[in-house]
Amino acid sequence: MAIKTGIVGAAGFAGIELVRLVLRHPDLDLTVVTSNELAGMPVAAEYPGFTGATGLAFSAHDDPSLDACELVFLAVPHTAALAMAPHLVAGGATVVDLSADFRLKDPAVYEQWYATPHTATDLLARAAFGLPELFRADLERAAQARTAGEPALVACAGCYPTATSLAAAPAIRAGLAATNGVVVADAISGVTGAGKKATARTHFCFADENLEAYGVGTHRHTPEIEQILGIARQGRLVFTPHLAPLNRGLLSTVNVPLAPNAPADAAAYVELYRDFYRDSAFVHVLDAGSMPKTSSVAGTNNAHVGLAVNAAARMLIAVCAIDNLGKGAAGQAMQCANIVCGLPERRGLDPVAVPV
Amino acid sequence: MAIKTGIVGAAGFAGIELVRLVLRHPDLDLTVVTSNELAGMPVAAEYPGFTGATGLAFSAHDDPSLDACELVFLAVPHTAALAMAPHLVAGGATVVDLSADFRLKDPAVYEQWYATPHTATDLLARAAFGLPELFRADLERAAQARTAGEPALVACAGCYPTATSLAAAPAIRAGLAATNGVVVADAISGVTGAGKKATARTHFCFADENLEAYGVGTHRHTPEIEQILGIARQGRLVFTPHLAPLNRGLLSTVNVPLAPNAPADAAAYVELYRDFYRDSAFVHVLDAGSMPKTSSVAGTNNAHVGLAVNAAARMLIAVCAIDNLGKGAAGQAMQCANIVCGLPERRGLDPVAVPV
Amino acid sequence: MAIKTGIVGAAGFAGIELVRLVLRHPDLDLTVVTSNELAGMPVAAEYPGFTGATGLAFSAHDDPSLDACELVFLAVPHTAALAMAPHLVAGGATVVDLSADFRLKDPAVYEQWYATPHTATDLLARAAFGLPELFRADLERAAQARTAGEPALVACAGCYPTATSLAAAPAIRAGLAATNGVVVADAISGVTGAGKKATARTHFCFADENLEAYGVGTHRHTPEIEQILGIARQGRLVFTPHLAPLNRGLLSTVNVPLAPNAPADAAAYVELYRDFYRDSAFVHVLDAGSMPKTSSVAGTNNAHVGLAVNAAARMLIAVCAIDNLGKGAAGQAMQCANIVCGLPERRGLDPVAVPV
Amino acid sequence: MAIKTGIVGAAGFAGIELVRLVLRHPDLDLTVVTSNELAGMPVAAEYPGFTGATGLAFSAHDDPSLDACELVFLAVPHTAALAMAPHLVAGGATVVDLSADFRLKDPAVYEQWYATPHTATDLLARAAFGLPELFRADLERAAQARTAGEPALVACAGCYPTATSLAAAPAIRAGLAATNGVVVADAISGVTGAGKKATARTHFCFADENLEAYGVGTHRHTPEIEQILGIARQGRLVFTPHLAPLNRGLLSTVNVPLAPNAPADAAAYVELYRDFYRDSAFVHVLDAGSMPKTSSVAGTNNAHVGLAVNAAARMLIAVCAIDNLGKGAAGQAMQCANIVCGLPERRGLDPVAVPV
Repeated sequence: MAIKTGIVGAAGFAGIELVRLVLRHPDLDLTVVTSNELAGMPVAAEYPGFTGATGLAFSAHDDPSLDACELVFLAVPHTAALAMAPHLVAGGATVVDLSADFRLKDPAVYEQWYATPHTATDLLARAAFGLPELFRADLERAAQARTAGEPALVACAGCYPTATSLAAAPAIRAGLAATNGVVVADAISGVTGAGKKATARTHFCFADENLEAYGVGTHRHTPEIEQILGIARQGRLVFTPHLAPLNRGLLSTVNVPLAPNAPADAAAYVELYRDFYRDSAFVHVLDAGSMPKTSSVAGTNNAHVGLAVNAAARMLIAVCAIDNLGKGAAGQAMQCANIVCGLPERRGLDPVAVPV
Repeated sequence: MAIKTGIVGAAGFAGIELVRLVLRHPDLDLTVVTSNELAGMPVAAEYPGFTGATGLAFSAHDDPSLDACELVFLAVPHTAALAMAPHLVAGGATVVDLSADFRLKDPAVYEQWYATPHTATDLLARAAFGLPELFRADLERAAQARTAGEPALVACAGCYPTATSLAAAPAIRAGLAATNGVVVADAISGVTGAGKKATARTHFCFADENLEAYGVGTHRHTPEIEQILGIARQGRLVFTPHLAPLNRGLLSTVNVPLAPNAPADAAAYVELYRDFYRDSAFVHVLDAGSMPKTSSVAGTNNAHVGLAVNAAARMLIAVCAIDNLGKGAAGQAMQCANIVCGLPERRGLDPVAVPV
Repeated sequence: MAIKTGIVGAAGFAGIELVRLVLRHPDLDLTVVTSNELAGMPVAAEYPGFTGATGLAFSAHDDPSLDACELVFLAVPHTAALAMAPHLVAGGATVVDLSADFRLKDPAVYEQWYATPHTATDLLARAAFGLPELFRADLERAAQARTAGEPALVACAGCYPTATSLAAAPAIRAGLAATNGVVVADAISGVTGAGKKATARTHFCFADENLEAYGVGTHRHTPEIEQILGIARQGRLVFTPHLAPLNRGLLSTVNVPLAPNAPADAAAYVELYRDFYRDSAFVHVLDAGSMPKTSSVAGTNNAHVGLAVNAAARMLIAVCAIDNLGKGAAGQAMQCANIVCGLPERRGLDPVAVPV
Repeated sequence: MAIKTGIVGAAGFAGIELVRLVLRHPDLDLTVVTSNELAGMPVAAEYPGFTGATGLAFSAHDDPSLDACELVFLAVPHTAALAMAPHLVAGGATVVDLSADFRLKDPAVYEQWYATPHTATDLLARAAFGLPELFRADLERAAQARTAGEPALVACAGCYPTATSLAAAPAIRAGLAATNGVVVADAISGVTGAGKKATARTHFCFADENLEAYGVGTHRHTPEIEQILGIARQGRLVFTPHLAPLNRGLLSTVNVPLAPNAPADAAAYVELYRDFYRDSAFVHVLDAGSMPKTSSVAGTNNAHVGLAVNAAARMLIAVCAIDNLGKGAAGQAMQCANIVCGLPERRGLDPVAVPV
């Protein structure tokens, strides 16, 4: 029987992509989609691509029918998820949170970067981290708990942390990164990453035909990457995000200084990474010499990883391409929901991007 | 049991979109994909989005395993389909042709516009026209023939003719167009419509940040539109295609002069069109006052139609948005194949575009 | 001695392009740039391309130093120009207005389309129409008046009217258009035409990879085109604007039904148009068979016109490409200012677009 | 009296931008533009933006009228410049070479990276390096030599080296970079950087909506950056270029590990850089906290530099935005030509980018 599903914050870019994914999922039944701003408006009025596909209309976040959902996705800004998750979990729903509210394990780090106290530290302690390829055990525990009747909360990884960590983690976990070196991650995102709000930054005429770095030294995904990679000690990461004129796509180029004993040829890393990701249906490690393109993964939950080594500089250059709204947001949330709900991990997720 | 399916010309833009659609189709089994130019190369090497999804490699057009296919899509240029279709049909395959070779019913018109003789006029006479919303009976006859063991050939409509005709046909068939007026269709296409060949026209730096008209007065889709709409009498159509900087999307703005007795308010046409398309799952007629966006249909087989009337000028302005590779090519071919093979018409086709 | 120049509404897209043009003009001295919203902010803070080139900051529209300007450009929305122009003209300034407030000669038509009364009909009667290639005498009269000490007001033509009229006027003025036919103009604009305000329409993620028609049947440039072309009689024009994903560029494809006596070959029109524009430095009529590209004129005040004839349909297809912020706004305003101020018409205007 | 000027390889993207710049330069007289491929074709036929602005047609590279030029720009691929420069210099022309042939001071390094012997090492030894902000003395020596009747050769810096070096050089020259650290430069270019040749990489449909890294570890600009920055010792630089969907623009994000004694606040570097570039008209150092946009410099010879420090990681993040065809190619070549010819450095170069 289909799982009653709700999406809170369904009118934003990650939220509406979730609407698309849930509607096509054979085991989920989308019963409520909320947006305080657009409450009352049909989904298809705001996003005309849904014309004929759903008669659902947005309701407000306090829609009581949310309480009847067994699965709730939260696609709201940070602090909003913090406010809603405890009630939903207490009501028995499995909650998959796309916000940053339950990602950082240390409430002090959360408070430092988000400038607001963490008001649900108990739940934080129990949250599974939603990046299945790196924290599968976390999610399987949540699945078992759910089976046992204990509601689960998944804190999905952010877009930059996902791509950056998929690129760097296998080498770092294998102990091949120099422990005294600095990991330099320069990442580029499409404009959907900047959100639905119409601003100067998201104005077509300012984003088009432009490249820029932003949030240099201050981007809130920095502590999240440090946590995932276990390099949270001060100064092990320099992360710089950039904006480029495309809708969907995120490319993270991660420069990992190699330990003295680490090999210095790309082939060794291709082998290592393929072994690391051998059970990960969504991550594809390209042949040595090949580099990923974001267009190859647009609209999907796939991640493509390319690897090169600068032997003289003892540097691994690991590049990961994802769709920031796919593996970087809604796709990953769906993958996590599948795992926690005991469904096949790929259910409802497109295996192949539109080719051109 | 799955239908053995082949795609000839699978490396071009329409062909590779067909590869994607056939791979995800539950009733089709893709056994051969051909490209003379890329014979021997894995599909995923040329289009890395297929990494992990198929191990198929391109073979040459003369691959004998084509003969074992029950369903063959031809996504080759005109004349190439003319050369291959007779043999395939004779061999018993159902052939869905995306080229122009079997679209024009009158061989003389074909020869005039394509400057080459038509060498398979018998087959031409039997070909079903692949635009289901306007020629459904044609396709159902083909389906019955196929059931009776007689191989079928479908000549899918071109991209501009599809959008232009879906916009204009309901009014014209209802006798509401002035019989002495000229239909003016100004259409805009994304660059995938210009094909995979790397040329000055398809170079990013010439296509980006540019708008232009092309093929003015000479575009080969002109006689096809005239045939579909039944306005082939000299001078009833002025068709001008334009190129704009996007990948997928085709918008046709069709100005239809109204007959003296025709109503002059948009609402009447919205009603008429909705009735006309009431059994067409893929065509959505928007409310009066709304106009379609190509982004609403990208990646799908959907068509959105918007209607307005200039009462003073006695002109219906009918606008249709499609994905030139979807309803304008591969999607429509799949829809036709579904019908002819007796499958549900929507099988394997995405109902909803990526929302942003 | 340089002419003291002010720009009101300098922070919008047309306004800031004027800032660029005035700064590079050898005979103008930019002394004041206003923006109520950004008053106090340096120009280079909002538009960093001006870093190092000007220390000017925006002031409010009521900046008294405007009164010291001999030349004032108004790049404000309609009604705002109506409110300011009388005072500025009375103060002795030459005013070049980019808004719609003084374009429509008949106040009743203005009131019908802009839903507000015209409160300066005296000034309206005296306004020169700013489309020099078609109304040069108007501007020369204004120049003579200015020399005689009488302040001048120029109402610059809008972007769509400029491109559409440059395409259609030579044929219509030569009496070659069928007087009972409907002119169909389908035009496409880049997103700068939608203005600086951040809205859903101008959001990168909604404008990118999308084509749409808008304002169908209701666009306020309709009566302006009718006035310019002298086809204001009800129903002689159907005008449909479209939006495409580029910054600058406007292409108008104008279908003009030909009179019985009119020639039906493109070459005749190329000759006619070249003669018509022989003294117009900014308009280039392309060879028969060539069609204009907006990228050829981006950043300039140039207009390229291409001509084709559909002999069977007795239709002239005249296509004009301009930069909507150049010949469609700021460039044309500067050209008008040059003429009215007695300067060479091309002064300060780039002759050549960036080639790629 | 105007300087007779020729451009060899004028049909490529850097070449045609030079045509634009030379045509608008008050002291240069463009007499010959060559292209072997397009010999005989008018410039305006290939690049219609020049319609009405020049009647010049391309001639072949062996056009004898090149010999009459006092100033020759070489915008040809490497090895082609090597073949032509000696003859032109011997004939007395001042040669400004945009290729890589005379950039690398050590012929062995040239031969290693370009896989071809250097056949003009005498001339190489005399070549001035064309990056005025960092090697002004070189160019002034060339200017003096030219005055003394000795022909000059300028080897203009490449696009990535220019942006990367402008970002990193002031810190490195001040001794603030850790001598045992690795400089990581991740740079992004628009598609004009990939050249005019129509290829899969430059096809609109593959470049649009895509991000990718390329030439990882193998890009030929690597040794050039090492030479400019004086960090040629093996392994001091990891350079990764990326491609993004825009025409013009290059952003280099350079991560410079700081020496123990170096300050760790951005303000200190802003001050240092402003002092360093105090006499450089084209380089603007932004306020601490601001980061450059490539759109701010498109079409110009300007470079914008933004600076941030990650104090914990002891890393300077220096970001430079240029137009790859401006300061990265044709603009810089013109700037060098101005210096060597004794003209004001900014002559003929636009001070301000199109603002939107």
